[in-house]
Amino acid sequence: MRATADGHQLERLNRPKTRGVVLDLIRAARTISRVELAAGSGLTAPTITQVVRGLIDDGLVVEAGRGESTGGKPRTLLQLNAAARYSVGVQLERYTSVIVIVDLAGRPVARASFPGAGQAAPDETLRLVAEHVDTLLTTAGVARSKVLGVGLVSHGPQDRVGGTLLAPQTAPGWHGYPVVRRLAEFVRLPVLLDNDATAAAVGEFWIGGVDPASTYGCIYLGGGFGGGVVVAGEVYRGSSSNTMEVGHITVAADGAECPCGNRGCLEIVAGPWKVISEAWASPGLAARLGLDRDGADLIADFALIAGAAMTGDPTARALIEKSARYVGYAAVTLTNLFDLDRIVLAGPSFTPAGSIYQSMVQAVLDRATFARAAHRVQVALSASGSDAAAVGGAALVLRGELTPRHLRRPDGGSLGYTYSGHLPADRTTVGNRSA
Amino acid sequence: MRATADGHQLERLNRPKTRGVVLDLIRAARTISRVELAAGSGLTAPTITQVVRGLIDDGLVVEAGRGESTGGKPRTLLQLNAAARYSVGVQLERYTSVIVIVDLAGRPVARASFPGAGQAAPDETLRLVAEHVDTLLTTAGVARSKVLGVGLVSHGPQDRVGGTLLAPQTAPGWHGYPVVRRLAEFVRLPVLLDNDATAAAVGEFWIGGVDPASTYGCIYLGGGFGGGVVVAGEVYRGSSSNTMEVGHITVAADGAECPCGNRGCLEIVAGPWKVISEAWASPGLAARLGLDRDGADLIADFALIAGAAMTGDPTARALIEKSARYVGYAAVTLTNLFDLDRIVLAGPSFTPAGSIYQSMVQAVLDRATFARAAHRVQVALSASGSDAAAVGGAALVLRGELTPRHLRRPDGGSLGYTYSGHLPADRTTVGNRSA
Repeated sequence: MRATADGHQLERLNRPKTRGVVLDLIRAARTISRVELAAGSGLTAPTITQVVRGLIDDGLVVEAGRGESTGGKPRTLLQLNAAARYSVGVQLERYTSVIVIVDLAGRPVARASFPGAGQAAPDETLRLVAEHVDTLLTTAGVARSKVLGVGLVSHGPQDRVGGTLLAPQTAPGWHGYPVVRRLAEFVRLPVLLDNDATAAAVGEFWIGGVDPASTYGCIYLGGGFGGGVVVAGEVYRGSSSNTMEVGHITVAADGAECPCGNRGCLEIVAGPWKVISEAWASPGLAARLGLDRDGADLIADFALIAGAAMTGDPTARALIEKSARYVGYAAVTLTNLFDLDRIVLAGPSFTPAGSIYQSMVQAVLDRATFARAAHRVQVALSASGSDAAAVGGAALVLRGELTPRHLRRPDGGSLGYTYSGHLPADRTTVGNRSA
Repeated sequence: MRATADGHQLERLNRPKTRGVVLDLIRAARTISRVELAAGSGLTAPTITQVVRGLIDDGLVVEAGRGESTGGKPRTLLQLNAAARYSVGVQLERYTSVIVIVDLAGRPVARASFPGAGQAAPDETLRLVAEHVDTLLTTAGVARSKVLGVGLVSHGPQDRVGGTLLAPQTAPGWHGYPVVRRLAEFVRLPVLLDNDATAAAVGEFWIGGVDPASTYGCIYLGGGFGGGVVVAGEVYRGSSSNTMEVGHITVAADGAECPCGNRGCLEIVAGPWKVISEAWASPGLAARLGLDRDGADLIADFALIAGAAMTGDPTARALIEKSARYVGYAAVTLTNLFDLDRIVLAGPSFTPAGSIYQSMVQAVLDRATFARAAHRVQVALSASGSDAAAVGGAALVLRGELTPRHLRRPDGGSLGYTYSGHLPADRTTVGNRSA
């Protein structure tokens, strides 16, 4: 009797997880049969039948013709009903803001970009974001009832539980400002907050850019560096989700002090700000490339240098290669600490000279990763390019709703993903709230 | 019907985990009542009654008097039966080897240390280890039938699944040598292989040195640096368990090349070898401290310098403080990447000047950790001192047997702990093999 009671309790706890596992397999495979789902999940055929029936009833999954026969009756294939749900990703930073609307399969269906928050007050910026979201939903013909929520991503440090930023992002008014609560009020949708680079890492997984079983890291480069690590689909979260601040690891301990308090950080040795400074110090280069004397947009100026490096300017190329070599050392630090299979380079500042960064980082890793005798580490460019963080923010909303993978901590906290602020933590399924 | 079948499947999968959770709570609390176990685990009172009955029947847990009354009947307290099971930890490295026998509560009951493997052939070294284990068990009066196995720990890289070392540890003969299989033959006990620093991190958790819910890192220093990260009791494993090679993260990208293939590694900038080299370059210091001209034992020579730093030799102190400052930068890299609550300094080379390293690393972290606005990172010295890795090896055996916390990967691999080689992976409970 006790065993049965216990069994029921466990079953209840595991139900959303079962549903999430099945959805994840369908998403990863694009089309898949029930038999393959049973094989891939380790669940029994009757369980698969039951879960799939629920997903079809909720409109999340559709039947999509028949696969090839393997001797018996051809198998019915299942796929996600991509148009059943949508989510919004918003990336907010100083120089550029990006908004994307993404369908259930993780495909962007609409996109807008506009100048970043700059020196504007938080309320003003978030009102503008909400207007852009409204316009974009209307343009794309996406009904608000199908939108699960907004994934707002920005750089760290953050208080994800409280829904606030812990750094003066662009102007001092942002520090401690209730960014999640205010955006939710303006946009009238649930909002979650996360780190932009973590989001980019999760997005890469969601849109199918990496082997689901792999341990991979993402290095993100916009105005500065960020990062995220995903182990077999689980985000590495650490104590407070302030992980993978790749820009602030020391690569040159005898180098200059960084405003962050540390010394010789990757960001001040090899980031856009440093590369632009070196370009200005290089006779004639800044004028030749048309760099902005006011330095108002770090990402735009850096893109000019990276573009020139790609089209054969030897001085620009030397600057980018120097930056890429330091990124290589940072990548070795990541592989030596996290034991990664793969490193994905994502974000707007990796896009214009992606191939230079990719080949340099790969070369340094091949030569210097400590456990290269155990396995190789592959470097790749993000499938989402400059929009990786925004797409990732949207993916976090889809993922949090559809595939809850919570590792419970003894204190009741979660190491996996949880909503901050305006999405109730127990709302883990879609279309079947009573389950 | 289907739901019930599914429920039973889940129950079966979760049974060993339930047992592990309960054992872990008893171990952490030292004494605890059934009511507190139910509150701490979230399990129902009948389930706790049933699990505890099984643990008492198997001799792993005993009743230990009554706690204070909180109004009603005083509650019976439970504690681990420390003498019910033992395990052996063996740390093997070039300069020193340490063997410890540890009881079920994680307390060392016997210890031996002897010169390390040096240039000896693997078979010769492992035969000697097996003899030492035999002698130690006899001396301590521990019956072999109560010994769960041997945790063999050494530095990386390693192939834990194949049970081999992937580096020429002390002599080329060790590379690819089946160290797990051979030691198991010599010692006639199950053997597992793990990284010494990972083991030290797990040992710290097992003996109760850290809050079970915390995210902590261990930096280990013997002849070189190593490390481990534990998140709420789970070891971070990465792709192939070759994680946290702290000694080979770049802290000075413009510094010398390291034999590992990387540049400016912590180990060659701040490790014992570097400190000893600088001591020889400092007029009169080497002679004053009695350093060995042949440099046969890095750990012993380093301990002389560290000891002199502690007793007021200003030149020695400057060398140790310089090393400690670099360790501080590495610690910032760890906190910025893993978002840690705590860093534990463990191993024989942190022991002699522990307070210098602790205060310097704490000072650098307080000033330079990126997310210090979110929470402080505390630096502590290991409770196991020089024996941390060996005690950790023994703890891994106890932990693998008693508290299986496997995170299954989609490919069927495990992110948590699994036995390599000579312990069957499905042997997850003690005294009740049929469960």
